[in-house]
Amino acid sequence: MDVFTRLESEVRGYCRGWPTVFTTARGSTLRDENGRDFLDFFAGAGTLNYGHNDPALKQRLLDYLAADNIVHSLDMHTAAKRRFLERFDEIVLKPRGLDYKVQFPGPAGNHAVEAALKLARKYTGRETVVSFTNAFHGMTLGALAVTGNSMKRTGAGVPLGHGVTMPYDNYLDGRTPDFLLFETMLDDSGSGLDKPAAVIVETVQGEGGVNVASAEWLRGLAGVCERHGILLIVDDVQMGCGRTGAFFSFEDAGITPDIVCLSKSLSGFGLPFAITLMRRDLDVWEPGEHNGTFRGFNPAFVTAAGALEDHWADDGMAERTLAKGGLVRRALDEIALRHAGEIADVRGRGLVWGMETRDPRTASRICAEAFGRGLLMETSGPNDEVVKLLPPLTTTEDELARGLAILADSVAAVQAAGPKETGPKETGAAGARAAGGPGGAGAQAGPGARAAVHA
Amino acid sequence: MDVFTRLESEVRGYCRGWPTVFTTARGSTLRDENGRDFLDFFAGAGTLNYGHNDPALKQRLLDYLAADNIVHSLDMHTAAKRRFLERFDEIVLKPRGLDYKVQFPGPAGNHAVEAALKLARKYTGRETVVSFTNAFHGMTLGALAVTGNSMKRTGAGVPLGHGVTMPYDNYLDGRTPDFLLFETMLDDSGSGLDKPAAVIVETVQGEGGVNVASAEWLRGLAGVCERHGILLIVDDVQMGCGRTGAFFSFEDAGITPDIVCLSKSLSGFGLPFAITLMRRDLDVWEPGEHNGTFRGFNPAFVTAAGALEDHWADDGMAERTLAKGGLVRRALDEIALRHAGEIADVRGRGLVWGMETRDPRTASRICAEAFGRGLLMETSGPNDEVVKLLPPLTTTEDELARGLAILADSVAAVQAAGPKETGPKETGAAGARAAGGPGGAGAQAGPGARAAVHA
Amino acid sequence: MDVFTRLESEVRGYCRGWPTVFTTARGSTLRDENGRDFLDFFAGAGTLNYGHNDPALKQRLLDYLAADNIVHSLDMHTAAKRRFLERFDEIVLKPRGLDYKVQFPGPAGNHAVEAALKLARKYTGRETVVSFTNAFHGMTLGALAVTGNSMKRTGAGVPLGHGVTMPYDNYLDGRTPDFLLFETMLDDSGSGLDKPAAVIVETVQGEGGVNVASAEWLRGLAGVCERHGILLIVDDVQMGCGRTGAFFSFEDAGITPDIVCLSKSLSGFGLPFAITLMRRDLDVWEPGEHNGTFRGFNPAFVTAAGALEDHWADDGMAERTLAKGGLVRRALDEIALRHAGEIADVRGRGLVWGMETRDPRTASRICAEAFGRGLLMETSGPNDEVVKLLPPLTTTEDELARGLAILADSVAAVQAAGPKETGPKETGAAGARAAGGPGGAGAQAGPGARAAVHA
Amino acid sequence: MDVFTRLESEVRGYCRGWPTVFTTARGSTLRDENGRDFLDFFAGAGTLNYGHNDPALKQRLLDYLAADNIVHSLDMHTAAKRRFLERFDEIVLKPRGLDYKVQFPGPAGNHAVEAALKLARKYTGRETVVSFTNAFHGMTLGALAVTGNSMKRTGAGVPLGHGVTMPYDNYLDGRTPDFLLFETMLDDSGSGLDKPAAVIVETVQGEGGVNVASAEWLRGLAGVCERHGILLIVDDVQMGCGRTGAFFSFEDAGITPDIVCLSKSLSGFGLPFAITLMRRDLDVWEPGEHNGTFRGFNPAFVTAAGALEDHWADDGMAERTLAKGGLVRRALDEIALRHAGEIADVRGRGLVWGMETRDPRTASRICAEAFGRGLLMETSGPNDEVVKLLPPLTTTEDELARGLAILADSVAAVQAAGPKETGPKETGAAGARAAGGPGGAGAQAGPGARAAVHA
Repeated sequence: MDVFTRLESEVRGYCRGWPTVFTTARGSTLRDENGRDFLDFFAGAGTLNYGHNDPALKQRLLDYLAADNIVHSLDMHTAAKRRFLERFDEIVLKPRGLDYKVQFPGPAGNHAVEAALKLARKYTGRETVVSFTNAFHGMTLGALAVTGNSMKRTGAGVPLGHGVTMPYDNYLDGRTPDFLLFETMLDDSGSGLDKPAAVIVETVQGEGGVNVASAEWLRGLAGVCERHGILLIVDDVQMGCGRTGAFFSFEDAGITPDIVCLSKSLSGFGLPFAITLMRRDLDVWEPGEHNGTFRGFNPAFVTAAGALEDHWADDGMAERTLAKGGLVRRALDEIALRHAGEIADVRGRGLVWGMETRDPRTASRICAEAFGRGLLMETSGPNDEVVKLLPPLTTTEDELARGLAILADSVAAVQAAGPKETGPKETGAAGARAAGGPGGAGAQAGPGARAAVHA
Repeated sequence: MDVFTRLESEVRGYCRGWPTVFTTARGSTLRDENGRDFLDFFAGAGTLNYGHNDPALKQRLLDYLAADNIVHSLDMHTAAKRRFLERFDEIVLKPRGLDYKVQFPGPAGNHAVEAALKLARKYTGRETVVSFTNAFHGMTLGALAVTGNSMKRTGAGVPLGHGVTMPYDNYLDGRTPDFLLFETMLDDSGSGLDKPAAVIVETVQGEGGVNVASAEWLRGLAGVCERHGILLIVDDVQMGCGRTGAFFSFEDAGITPDIVCLSKSLSGFGLPFAITLMRRDLDVWEPGEHNGTFRGFNPAFVTAAGALEDHWADDGMAERTLAKGGLVRRALDEIALRHAGEIADVRGRGLVWGMETRDPRTASRICAEAFGRGLLMETSGPNDEVVKLLPPLTTTEDELARGLAILADSVAAVQAAGPKETGPKETGAAGARAAGGPGGAGAQAGPGARAAVHA
Repeated sequence: MDVFTRLESEVRGYCRGWPTVFTTARGSTLRDENGRDFLDFFAGAGTLNYGHNDPALKQRLLDYLAADNIVHSLDMHTAAKRRFLERFDEIVLKPRGLDYKVQFPGPAGNHAVEAALKLARKYTGRETVVSFTNAFHGMTLGALAVTGNSMKRTGAGVPLGHGVTMPYDNYLDGRTPDFLLFETMLDDSGSGLDKPAAVIVETVQGEGGVNVASAEWLRGLAGVCERHGILLIVDDVQMGCGRTGAFFSFEDAGITPDIVCLSKSLSGFGLPFAITLMRRDLDVWEPGEHNGTFRGFNPAFVTAAGALEDHWADDGMAERTLAKGGLVRRALDEIALRHAGEIADVRGRGLVWGMETRDPRTASRICAEAFGRGLLMETSGPNDEVVKLLPPLTTTEDELARGLAILADSVAAVQAAGPKETGPKETGAAGARAAGGPGGAGAQAGPGARAAVHA
Repeated sequence: MDVFTRLESEVRGYCRGWPTVFTTARGSTLRDENGRDFLDFFAGAGTLNYGHNDPALKQRLLDYLAADNIVHSLDMHTAAKRRFLERFDEIVLKPRGLDYKVQFPGPAGNHAVEAALKLARKYTGRETVVSFTNAFHGMTLGALAVTGNSMKRTGAGVPLGHGVTMPYDNYLDGRTPDFLLFETMLDDSGSGLDKPAAVIVETVQGEGGVNVASAEWLRGLAGVCERHGILLIVDDVQMGCGRTGAFFSFEDAGITPDIVCLSKSLSGFGLPFAITLMRRDLDVWEPGEHNGTFRGFNPAFVTAAGALEDHWADDGMAERTLAKGGLVRRALDEIALRHAGEIADVRGRGLVWGMETRDPRTASRICAEAFGRGLLMETSGPNDEVVKLLPPLTTTEDELARGLAILADSVAAVQAAGPKETGPKETGAAGARAAGGPGGAGAQAGPGARAAVHA
């Protein structure tokens, strides 16, 4: 692995917690170059909801490529794009009564976010965007300004402006009424809160520690936005495409965001692809006002259309996800009960689950034990204190059971080993996030964090 | 095409100038759904330097996918990534004596730019980045702040800070010595120029109007940076990967940037892919300090490694590009001579060429005529006044000759039709850029441009 | 008064609520050019704590000027400055065990604030400053960024950055524990709160509506700052110099701020004068790093030293202020009891008192009635809903009784007249603040508030 | 002088170069507590155009104060304010055909600038303000953002935005046509120059090194502004009130700014006072949108009106200033001729003159020598390389001759002493600006300048 150390930037992360070289993958299994198989409870951080190399999607992709269909086309019209738009309209939008227009803002989730923020600011003529504690919306400068993690924020190298942070659901443990501060400030012309263009929210904060907003809280938020003429942006990059059960994670709450960001599992095959959905009347873009080279990647149109056809023609996927989620919850609850000294909380929705450890280092140790036993899981949360389970939605019940058993063993092994004296720096092979996730341990930017590394 | 109008955002651009639906593509030819072929002098805005669906790369891609090799892997180690790193080192870096480390900052060129800007600011502890008039570095907020186009900038919806603009080579028609203003301000502690972290520059400004920096000017710039301890970032997203002849566009000038951004043709096949190269000692990133979902897209590693093996093992590609460039230049000079009333200037390098028209609307009319004759070209420049030629480097001499003949006919047709009274709004089927490129006509942000679209 | 209308900018404010021309003043009485006397419960918005034209201070000033002593001296050493420093040290600092250094940052309170913010940022190397809902710190760009009022903020014409707003004491009516949000966010590296350089706070928010922070809350705030290494700045511009009883308004709470801003009554005579006090070890300024033409105004040194000698040699001033405050409180409580349908709350400390009306327009009507009866009072609060009493500390008990009787009559008259249908625009001669104070009615910046007034 | 060292912040400046304690002053003479007299070629940095303690103005002031006329009145109407407005209209505005409205923005020059910037941004709905290399507009955050000096800028502790710097007249030694860059960028929608709200300019840059803009250049600038719909703000804080001859420094150029800032010598007596003048139709302020405690300081109204009556009723002041300026110029030219090895340039206008030294340290040594001989002068320019002469306009020809003789002796003494090896730190008693002026030696902010002083 010398070549990685010698040539790849120190910024690399996941490879530090999972020190092997992967070669092939299928469904919920990855194989490394030593022929060892790993069960995948990570799913490309939510990018592989239908597993690795879904055969039907793969066939569509191979057929498309083999026939010399067009691959790269910016925002020219192509047959593949038309088919995607038609399928998305028929299978996703129309059945849900959603009258959105679709923007192709670039291939990544942060492009969907950057476009959403621009549009909200342009439409309203305002600048402030409200985001929430422990939000994660991406690393480009606009998206980073509405992201909570201090290590990431410090990485910007410039102050991040035009954003205001409000407490997420249950952030203060129910010790203050929801939206009391936010709405009081909105109603008070002396509050110092410049009237926001938009609120951007994740219904479940995956990177932030698997924090789950209740349906009631989401409805409350939508109500605040409506009463004050603020646009509501749901960043469904990680939680959309069925992760929580329904296609959109906000469906259960019965709300209709003004703008929606989708990416990750949208292509269904791990291909870079993102869209920004906007209420029809918000589409005030000038032609070309936001552009980008890879905003028309036809292989992604093909697999994305295929994924909708294969997985979302009926409610089966959603129902199975919820059923599997129940299975996961029960297993986690049992582990938490057995190891109450280590595990502080279990929370999740659909097939995203978090198990918060009392000592932040425990979560990384559990993930490291699991890796040793052939299971990939990452940590999340501001102190990497949450073991995060994000299996492909297509993971079989047997696989889930197998993975959960490994997890139980891993927790038991960590408990048996007792508390470690080592600080976070020495946890070597620990969970990927300890070193490279969105918020490494000790991420709090100390005094002088902005100082020069070199003079 | 109703589905596009009904469902795709108004932000769509190229499709307006090229009103058809494309299906397949091979080499330098695209075919639409009516079976009509178009010769491609656009090349995905520089993404398809080796043409559409290069058969050898396609085979590699099909083989990789068919064997269930891993597709999506964030920044885990994979065999495909290793192979890419090794090939890049052997074929690109070592022969050129470049000791860079490689960051995978996300799939798009603007990710490479955002990462470069962050790193430069972190390393130096400074905030200001100097860019140039008519620069184009991308649409995410950090990249947009160093981009010149006023329509794009206004789209940000917030003021763009931490940047200072200096005149590009020949911006003032030689009426002022190069870098006189820049270096005087750097030397003057009262100049108001906060000491910059970095300078970011394109060696040829493609979107900005095919403005070509001379080797002497580039060397001068590198000297200013060195004397003042400012990092030099070359954004080689569009001009790298052989567009100007050599693999990097800065090689001819004999300079070594501190940071280099690559994307577009890097995958060789139109797949979303980008890297940021940094001088080894600049690699002060913390693990995970900059991350992103699609920063490990294995199919792109595969085709990128293949493209290097196939096209860059020797100097043939560079030599052929320069030879073809000479052919283009001669043809354009001839056209300019014949139509001196319409054509103001011909400029370019390698296989990027621009033909500036005296009346900005003429360029769009020429591109529209060319489209009607089966040739795809876009306009560029702040007023879309430049016809831009960006054929695949693998375009044959016959194809070049055919395309240039169409271009000549198109110019002649526009001249014959005489000046049009119509303003830019009515030019309907005109060149793609007139409606959707980086700077539509009338892009100058007028008074009140920041005002709300809706109350 | 034509000359004012014709020549003075529309920005003029107080003159709209008090439509007469004043000529002379003495103690707590102003006289207009018609020879009519007005009792002053306004005191130059807190600038005239010792009344108008205090005879002893006046004599010192006349003597100083008559003898051709130096008037203007920037930050040269002068005998007058030395005397002020000595007196300030002996009478104010030493007896309170305060080891502050003194900066002369310019003649106005906002200069004291701007210098405090700069110093806090320089010392800590951080940028964010936390301020509170309904804070008022001044109109220059740095001070405005930590001010709450939306009309004032919009006046900046640029986004105001580097600030975060937290709820002031009792802002949420006790429905959430003090500092729960603030400290939770400080402790959470994912909260999105960039570690602050400083907190800036008024112990009583005069402009914000006479909101009184409890001693407990202030101690809690000081504790948060200490635990997190954040500097505590008390803006004592309006509440210092004895307004709340003790010389500094924070003394009663038993806290020691890191930085203190003083101005308004500091000169004791209405002369422009301000100082910034800083903990000795915070004095990291470079010579001349912050400067300004009027940072050495000797007549103000003279009257300021005199005011300390005359009024602060013992505890008499503080004791009398508290006694008079009790008198005011009893009278206001009585009015509130009698007019419970109009008056919602009475609050204050020392000799700053507010009477909040249920209908915001009532406060302005009361002030207008009072003006008609010869009493000057302004409104405050985000909706001008608070009648604010700020009499000179030297107002006699008889004068206080007389003014409070006028106030009682005014409230009765407004109640008798019944609710008015007129909106705020038509209240003509209403309280000064309705038109010109720091937050006029309807100050909430609506959508598009940033839009151009003229193209 | 222990008290100063012990109690006054390290930010103090002028006192370091002039290490004595001043007591009285009259006309162009200051006296220290040892009874030593100093001739004043500094004039409070331009605040004392009519000398210290002008007897006629003093009498007005004493009379006003003695009669208990109102001193402090915010923006209430007072008889003193009316008289000032009438006199200003009759003596200054009407004879010059200027139809300005008058704002009282606060007592300091930076208040006049902050108000001007706010108004320009509000009126135009744009944010960018163009300023010039080596501009000095003040230390509050808005004014500082358009100030050039790097040491001052770094003192802000936050990045300074919304400003663009253009080269001042002759900045590039005539090697580039005036406004070529500026106007090319304005005309080019791809230039990256966001359309400015305003240009702010000093006709002579006093702090920046006595850089004199030619009338032709000023007219050119006014033309650029007019053609592009940009407001022109002249900051006449230091150069107004007759410093260059005419009352306004821009009169000679025949231009009419849209907004004018006045302060310093406006009160005529060293009292803190400032106004912002605006073209009548620009007065789009809301009542109270910009406020401040000391925006109505009646003693300053009184002396300001008196100064206009006494000094500006006819052209005598302007004529005498120009005559005296000629006298100074001749003397300086002679010195420069005699000491061509030390003196690089002599420049100025009216009664502001600069003598640039070849070695920056020479200027401070000359000022130190002059101080020893009883003459006060400061240095200016980014490296304190310019000896700056700013005598009161009322200085007699005899006094001028005496001061110029001292200056000649001082230069000769410095030349005789030969080059000093000492660095700037050791020049102890050198010119005031070396330690405390707007730009001390070594002001260039090095790498990491933003870093924390203390953790």
